[in-house]
Amino acid sequence: MEVYAGLAGIPVVKSSISYIDGEKGVLEYRGIPIEELAENSNFLETSYLLVFGELPSKEKYEKFVSDVKENLFLDRSIIQFMKDIPPETHPMKVLQSIVPILSAFDDNKEVLEESHHYSSLVNLLGKVPTILAVWKRIREGKDIILPDPALDYGENFLYMLRGIKPEREEGEIFDKCLILHAEHTINASTFTAIVVVSTLADFYSAVSSAVGSLSGRLHGGANERVYYMLNELKHIGDIEGYVDEKLSKKERIMGFGHRVYKTYDPRAKIIKKLLDKILKSKGNSDLVRIANELENVVLQRLKHKKIYPNIDFYSGILYSVLGIPVEFYTPVFAMARISGWIAHCKEYIKENKLFRPTQIYDGGHNIRYLPLEKRH
Amino acid sequence: MEVYAGLAGIPVVKSSISYIDGEKGVLEYRGIPIEELAENSNFLETSYLLVFGELPSKEKYEKFVSDVKENLFLDRSIIQFMKDIPPETHPMKVLQSIVPILSAFDDNKEVLEESHHYSSLVNLLGKVPTILAVWKRIREGKDIILPDPALDYGENFLYMLRGIKPEREEGEIFDKCLILHAEHTINASTFTAIVVVSTLADFYSAVSSAVGSLSGRLHGGANERVYYMLNELKHIGDIEGYVDEKLSKKERIMGFGHRVYKTYDPRAKIIKKLLDKILKSKGNSDLVRIANELENVVLQRLKHKKIYPNIDFYSGILYSVLGIPVEFYTPVFAMARISGWIAHCKEYIKENKLFRPTQIYDGGHNIRYLPLEKRH
Repeated sequence: MEVYAGLAGIPVVKSSISYIDGEKGVLEYRGIPIEELAENSNFLETSYLLVFGELPSKEKYEKFVSDVKENLFLDRSIIQFMKDIPPETHPMKVLQSIVPILSAFDDNKEVLEESHHYSSLVNLLGKVPTILAVWKRIREGKDIILPDPALDYGENFLYMLRGIKPEREEGEIFDKCLILHAEHTINASTFTAIVVVSTLADFYSAVSSAVGSLSGRLHGGANERVYYMLNELKHIGDIEGYVDEKLSKKERIMGFGHRVYKTYDPRAKIIKKLLDKILKSKGNSDLVRIANELENVVLQRLKHKKIYPNIDFYSGILYSVLGIPVEFYTPVFAMARISGWIAHCKEYIKENKLFRPTQIYDGGHNIRYLPLEKRH
Repeated sequence: MEVYAGLAGIPVVKSSISYIDGEKGVLEYRGIPIEELAENSNFLETSYLLVFGELPSKEKYEKFVSDVKENLFLDRSIIQFMKDIPPETHPMKVLQSIVPILSAFDDNKEVLEESHHYSSLVNLLGKVPTILAVWKRIREGKDIILPDPALDYGENFLYMLRGIKPEREEGEIFDKCLILHAEHTINASTFTAIVVVSTLADFYSAVSSAVGSLSGRLHGGANERVYYMLNELKHIGDIEGYVDEKLSKKERIMGFGHRVYKTYDPRAKIIKKLLDKILKSKGNSDLVRIANELENVVLQRLKHKKIYPNIDFYSGILYSVLGIPVEFYTPVFAMARISGWIAHCKEYIKENKLFRPTQIYDGGHNIRYLPLEKRH
């Protein structure tokens, strides 16, 4: 018997939530190509689609948006509680910590009650952005900005984070970024969520655990490292030299290549356009100029290989243009992925099977306990 | 391709931490039979054994105990933070919530640095009991009891929880319960911990997620349900009738039978003796009399089947005798399992492989986005 290391290639679910064809560069949510959703939909509508399997009717859509907006506000005790967290705490830890406590305020969280899933979903979609924005303000010693339900979802987040209302275009572009990050089949964090929910723990426990999983640097956090690399290059200056050194050492250049996509990541194409659009009004920053030069050099050097910029390459830059601090890049990813995680939890619980894989034992047997005084 | 539902029988790790032979009723930690450890060791020494692979020398043991004791105290901000949590919040949620915040106070939490594992371990072993006891006191509106490093580990927990120093025997028996719950090969919570750590998230994120997983009623919480059943039987009175009805409906009787053990669970044997011992000094309660009668009836009815009381049957009763409130039964399980979780995280990270299983897609393709006004 062999160990299935990392379970690579082992199917753990039958799922109809999303589909990837890495060779052709296809990503679909519930069968709808990501390009169509990014063009026509918005994050909340896409969340509904992911979780409930179909685009909502007008009536259902309006109720859903209004229910999410009603859940934007945090209980005073949660805010007080966040004020007691040491300011250096990473926002991913804060998010992992606050989410389980939200369950205390929700009486409808029984995972075997299908009608309760809606309650966890609108509550988490409503409160996660507020938690992140409040934490950003608290740790910077600034006044907390209350949510504004009159604003659109993405717009409201930027407003709470920055303290000034964003331009219409900024909100729209940010909302589309959330669509692009909402779901991506089974990965470590989504898998964590379904393992947790398989014990019949509630969606709050599952989402908190998924946040913990996403906080690992092999999973979330790539866009954060793109940002640090670009800043490093700002000091180094010699981009060609940097790329050549990395390639000669066979080291990875952050933001290029993707495990699944062997062609252009369809999300990277979309986000590149969004970035171009916003730069038209905002103008190029140093970071953007460096990113452009880096992209040219890498694509030139690697033109024979199937290596392209990935979603993290552009999202890091885009978030910096939108004024989001670098430590909040992965939390924004988490905020978008709430929908994907909950969609998978809801799907899994329907024909639930507790996860209990096994091990291959390679230790000793029947060893005697040696008293303390006889050990060396 | 078929789905590996719940990954039953799929080995995900090669491990030398613990071994179970369910046919023969064997459980070994690092090759040492559980009976020997329960007889001769204590929880902290056993934790060291599980995590580091061997029993510590006298010098290492003393340093380890002293390091854990130095970590018993919570930062004032954590206590303040707990005071802001709604009192009805289940202690498992509180534990899941506080653990990630502890990481902010630990500078040595890089999972790829082997020397840092020690730091996370002594910190979590030190603080988890205090978190639970503080939460119990806060939600009951009682004064918080500061840890007393002069007491033994189990003794100190009972002291902080109840506010009066336990008898020597109570502390010793409770400590042995912790040994019995410290590790049990791969299960949903241990699996959750290694999936999370495989992303290179720190042990705090992994342990918090494992707590979330253990909070599900298919995993932890069986001893809690034993307690509720016995209380229900106190009102019903007719135990034979209860058993016969359950059996005729082919329903499970809580606290009997085990997925793995087809003979007497070796831990149940030990805990039964511990219970008998403490009852000698404490005297039988109503609950204990009902438990005894229930056990007799069930064993008589099922004498042809391989069904025996399991560890949860006796631990629920034992905890009630020790004055632990029922909502804290699963948290006590978590407190003991910290060692097992960390042992597995430490072992897994050595030859880490990110978990990324896959899915079988069974949805549609190339579906068009339908604008809101065209939907019904």
